[in-house]
Amino acid sequence: MPRPEQWQRDPTCYPFSTVTETRFQDLDPLGHINNVAMAALFENGRVRFNRNLGLERRQPGERWLIAAVAIDYVAEAHFPDPVEVMSGIGRIGRSSWDICSAAFQNGVCVATSITTIVVTDKAGPRPIADSLRASFAELMVRRPVRADA
Amino acid sequence: MPRPEQWQRDPTCYPFSTVTETRFQDLDPLGHINNVAMAALFENGRVRFNRNLGLERRQPGERWLIAAVAIDYVAEAHFPDPVEVMSGIGRIGRSSWDICSAAFQNGVCVATSITTIVVTDKAGPRPIADSLRASFAELMVRRPVRADA
Amino acid sequence: MPRPEQWQRDPTCYPFSTVTETRFQDLDPLGHINNVAMAALFENGRVRFNRNLGLERRQPGERWLIAAVAIDYVAEAHFPDPVEVMSGIGRIGRSSWDICSAAFQNGVCVATSITTIVVTDKAGPRPIADSLRASFAELMVRRPVRADA
Amino acid sequence: MPRPEQWQRDPTCYPFSTVTETRFQDLDPLGHINNVAMAALFENGRVRFNRNLGLERRQPGERWLIAAVAIDYVAEAHFPDPVEVMSGIGRIGRSSWDICSAAFQNGVCVATSITTIVVTDKAGPRPIADSLRASFAELMVRRPVRADA
Repeated sequence: MPRPEQWQRDPTCYPFSTVTETRFQDLDPLGHINNVAMAALFENGRVRFNRNLGLERRQPGERWLIAAVAIDYVAEAHFPDPVEVMSGIGRIGRSSWDICSAAFQNGVCVATSITTIVVTDKAGPRPIADSLRASFAELMVRRPVRADA
Repeated sequence: MPRPEQWQRDPTCYPFSTVTETRFQDLDPLGHINNVAMAALFENGRVRFNRNLGLERRQPGERWLIAAVAIDYVAEAHFPDPVEVMSGIGRIGRSSWDICSAAFQNGVCVATSITTIVVTDKAGPRPIADSLRASFAELMVRRPVRADA
Repeated sequence: MPRPEQWQRDPTCYPFSTVTETRFQDLDPLGHINNVAMAALFENGRVRFNRNLGLERRQPGERWLIAAVAIDYVAEAHFPDPVEVMSGIGRIGRSSWDICSAAFQNGVCVATSITTIVVTDKAGPRPIADSLRASFAELMVRRPVRADA
Repeated sequence: MPRPEQWQRDPTCYPFSTVTETRFQDLDPLGHINNVAMAALFENGRVRFNRNLGLERRQPGERWLIAAVAIDYVAEAHFPDPVEVMSGIGRIGRSSWDICSAAFQNGVCVATSITTIVVTDKAGPRPIADSLRASFAELMVRRPVRADA
């Protein structure tokens, strides 16, 4: 069974934070925050990460598409306490990048997420612009250096 | 960038199908089916997979928890055409299993998904009951045999 | 306590129908279809009413805005059976009109709704175009004639 | 076309307030907060009104059901600014009551709402308990006295 790595659950590894109120709509028949509702909370954290840090300056004709989202559910989350979503850049490729995020409630990590975004135009994937690449570099998650590296 | 394997996009690999109408609520400002809305469509297909095939017969005190959901977005999906979600069992472990799913719109695969479910009681993860394990075995996805296997 | 009128719960009064699958996401902690989820089902029926009957031909610069939505919840609705939403025009004003709808599950009316839409441009509300007004007239709900009218 | 009364748009008329972050999920293809998303914000304000003021102490076997929700959309609401939902009791009947609410964004009223709740048991509607009735009386909206009353 896949498990998030230890650093993914560590709030000190992420450069950006946003806090969102949970809503009654987030609950499912089990009485806890539904797993799809958690995906919406991660999306909201991701959009605010992009907006607040100025990463939305797309080139003309450019589209940013979600290529993949992977979420690990670590603990149950509940209503009505707020959820803090922390985010950072986890990988920068040629035309795609990963945003790593973690959700915390009352200081406890309840879920982690990795989202892959790809930049495209009509011709398909295109290289990440240099200025965007430079911004990403300043917003990397702070992964611990492995002893054996 | 992660990509679903070829078989994951092949409708003949899945033993179960459910068709759901898309809704106006599924749309986001980009005018296509939002990635979180697709997660809700996969959840609905998964729940119906469990219900229709009798897999909901949980033992007393037993809970099935979503441990992880990974979705690959292959193509844009649109309103108002329906989405068909196909599902099957992809892995059977000691106390957890994977449900593999794919979503199709007008015959085109638009997304694939792998969900890991773990069965727990108050003491934590517990072994999958033998009768449930037998049902899972009949609902496996039909992965192609590799030439080099 | 407000109650829908008898004719509002009568499927023969509505000229248009759309059937939508309920989803696991529609459920709330009480285990029935949540009242906001029912609002989304009504919205979907309304959008399909507009689309299928060609009522979306807006004039340039024209916007259709939702001015009001009133929903009466008549009976509990459940997952996984589908919900049929029936709709028709209930009122045609100078710059606004009402869409009356009712939701049925297994033949039972579970909720009714009246939505007021107003057509605007930059200067505010504007008169409904004659061609649109003519289309509306063909899609009126069939209200029973009152004996005392 | 129905319009909320002037007092409904006045924040000083409501005894209770809750502030909720808007989310990217609240947006629809028109790029503003969707009308159903606004219904979910009102629901959240209503649930917190009930919870924070201790109104959830239901009698055994008692159920509180939403009988009706009416929302007037006064102005467009936008992402990402938060929405403040203010609430109070607008009417106390024998077995039902109204919660009046208004939503504000950046100090501007964007929508108002009246929700009718009915208390039931297996035999149908039942009288509101005296202690609950007393709590309601303390949480009434402050409607202006009409000069002609």
